[in-house]
Amino acid sequence: MNPGDRVRVDRADRTFEGVALPSSTDDHLVVKLEGGYNVGVDRDAAEVEVLAEDVYEIDGRDSVGSNGDADDDTSEIAFDDDLPTITLVSTGGTIASTVDYRTGAVTAQFDAEDVLRAVPDLAGRANYRGRVVANILSENMEPPLWQELATVVHEEIEAGADGVVVMHGTDTMQYSASALSFMLETPVPIVFTGSQRSADRPSSDNVMNAVCAVEAAKSDCAEVLVCMHGSESDDVCALHRGTRVRKNHTSRRDAFETVGAEPLGTVDYETETVDFRRGYQERDARDLALANDLEADVELLKFTPGMDPAFLDVVEGSAGLILEGTGLGHVHTDLIPRLEELVADGTTVVMTSQCLEGRVCDRVYDTGRDLLEAGVLEAGDTLPGTAKVKLMWALENSDDVAEAMQTSLAGELQERSVPWE
Amino acid sequence: MNPGDRVRVDRADRTFEGVALPSSTDDHLVVKLEGGYNVGVDRDAAEVEVLAEDVYEIDGRDSVGSNGDADDDTSEIAFDDDLPTITLVSTGGTIASTVDYRTGAVTAQFDAEDVLRAVPDLAGRANYRGRVVANILSENMEPPLWQELATVVHEEIEAGADGVVVMHGTDTMQYSASALSFMLETPVPIVFTGSQRSADRPSSDNVMNAVCAVEAAKSDCAEVLVCMHGSESDDVCALHRGTRVRKNHTSRRDAFETVGAEPLGTVDYETETVDFRRGYQERDARDLALANDLEADVELLKFTPGMDPAFLDVVEGSAGLILEGTGLGHVHTDLIPRLEELVADGTTVVMTSQCLEGRVCDRVYDTGRDLLEAGVLEAGDTLPGTAKVKLMWALENSDDVAEAMQTSLAGELQERSVPWE
Repeated sequence: MNPGDRVRVDRADRTFEGVALPSSTDDHLVVKLEGGYNVGVDRDAAEVEVLAEDVYEIDGRDSVGSNGDADDDTSEIAFDDDLPTITLVSTGGTIASTVDYRTGAVTAQFDAEDVLRAVPDLAGRANYRGRVVANILSENMEPPLWQELATVVHEEIEAGADGVVVMHGTDTMQYSASALSFMLETPVPIVFTGSQRSADRPSSDNVMNAVCAVEAAKSDCAEVLVCMHGSESDDVCALHRGTRVRKNHTSRRDAFETVGAEPLGTVDYETETVDFRRGYQERDARDLALANDLEADVELLKFTPGMDPAFLDVVEGSAGLILEGTGLGHVHTDLIPRLEELVADGTTVVMTSQCLEGRVCDRVYDTGRDLLEAGVLEAGDTLPGTAKVKLMWALENSDDVAEAMQTSLAGELQERSVPWE
Repeated sequence: MNPGDRVRVDRADRTFEGVALPSSTDDHLVVKLEGGYNVGVDRDAAEVEVLAEDVYEIDGRDSVGSNGDADDDTSEIAFDDDLPTITLVSTGGTIASTVDYRTGAVTAQFDAEDVLRAVPDLAGRANYRGRVVANILSENMEPPLWQELATVVHEEIEAGADGVVVMHGTDTMQYSASALSFMLETPVPIVFTGSQRSADRPSSDNVMNAVCAVEAAKSDCAEVLVCMHGSESDDVCALHRGTRVRKNHTSRRDAFETVGAEPLGTVDYETETVDFRRGYQERDARDLALANDLEADVELLKFTPGMDPAFLDVVEGSAGLILEGTGLGHVHTDLIPRLEELVADGTTVVMTSQCLEGRVCDRVYDTGRDLLEAGVLEAGDTLPGTAKVKLMWALENSDDVAEAMQTSLAGELQERSVPWE
């Protein structure tokens, strides 16, 4: 059996028929099924019958090498002078994973080149470069990896990439997209994409999301974007600004939403058209710049009735604290003197709202005014998670952190809406 | 000047013209303006001109006494045998507040009888009883007050109330509504309402919300409901199940939404019609029962990338912990051994998702399975805040807490939706 052959694979009580694809491991074979999705099957436990040889040309397969290692994780595949160059950066997650049939669940396994192999539909749209920054489930993403990711993306743009696609797990994609939004000034698009359903599922979104992300990375919008399904259908992906996006559903393919605004744009899967509905940073309008220092010692606390004040003791001596308060941005008034101590002690304390929509406004009620007097800053309508990432960044990169937290640096704080009436 | 007179009030550079209402304080006079909303004006600083005497009959004003005190905070007003009896329970918040013109902001000031005075539109719809449980801003609401509130509501229903309206600040209304949902089995409606805009604002929602809440309290739905504006217009209020509702906008009047479902029903302000779209507990279907013991030592922690594991040390020895995890319900895998220790140590640990929509499903990915093996329970699609309240309740009132947290007790955990495909 060779890549490109039409095969039938029997494993336990399941049968798959499709085209064999190159696999990144010796343990598994990968079969592209009729519906366009791919399955990985444990080679030892499978019986394979070749139905027809060489029915499908696997683009660039000759130039696809083995898994890259730390010293050699960049390669170019089938270079075409007429096409833009897009770098695929892999961090892991469902989009870069295949099915582990032993346990019935999903483990991360692919690097960027494997993704390209697994998504033949990407071929012909661009010249690709592949970089692997991590191979983790996104719940394990940590601030130092945001820094590394920003460095790699910076290197790739410096090396001439016309756009970057970051393959990322969906669980913490919004945090990483925020981090890169603050760390990089970019003359080209940086597009995060991922997958809510793994490649072995008929409803997998990995092919369409990857294809649309590449189209967005070729577009004129030089911002950090998140590109994920825009509806339950396979028609359009939505393009969200990295600092305003939120995973709002655990499992739906269109789980990602722009909070407090319409998405910045859409990518039509059928026509490959990228449309923008609002203003954006245009390609080449800014020079490339990297500022990826982060203050790690910043925490986020969500206030709920009955919260143990001892959580604030953990923050003592920390550089920063994001509070996710109730409503317009409140906490129990008993906590305010403690917050005042933290501020006096040098901790930058910033208020956001667990409402998600709307802006904190601490001047209306007594509690809010007391919070302001205690030195707590207002983050407007900045999302709590984005505010945490921003504060980590601002503490290392801003001369005036208070001013920075109350100013929009990367679209995270929207223009004041008409207040109240 | 007497209540019912048409008056013009000049204060500083503002002039109000309307009908004088009874005021609960000597310091302020209250004027009902043409638009239907009321303003409170500092009496000392105001010049008052009576334009016409006795133009408006204030229902029940003769029987309205002074502010109730702790020993005498229940009274009945203008009893009509043909009308149902509704108890108004006041806890404070914007709906029970008037404007403090000295500071330009809002301070809580009214008790339930004051609300009735301030909202003459409530007259003629029911016989009212008034109870004051607290006069706090809702960010200061605490679990012991939920217990007291449940006790008072129980007393009122036992005494013959055909429905109860709870006036509550909007910031933590969802938590209190959840608490009463678990604490009370009720044969009559218990309807929370509040106000996003104070009575002095042309856009105030206090009159319509109070009127619709009274209509809902007269309805056939014997559940704990939240009744707030259903749109930006003054046309309908939405009725939300107390355990599925969330304040999703900081300032909009229609800030409250049912998460993961349509609202249970609506109240049409014009026609006074209460409509239900889904099944509900019918009036008198259940006997009245109170179970308001709570375990206070339950915390909620929201996981974000880079979270300090020291927050888990605060939880050591606690009875319960609600985790607000990423996506399907994940945290950094480094935290799992620590969670396992907490569980072994007797802490009930329950996973929810910060996505808000959708259910946690810890069986799909390795991290999730590891969490389950560590003894972490899944809360399905229970909202994180509701899960905290429920765990506080279940630890005192359930023989099998794990079973309780994975079963719907008051509509908080919805039927499993079609998984995945």
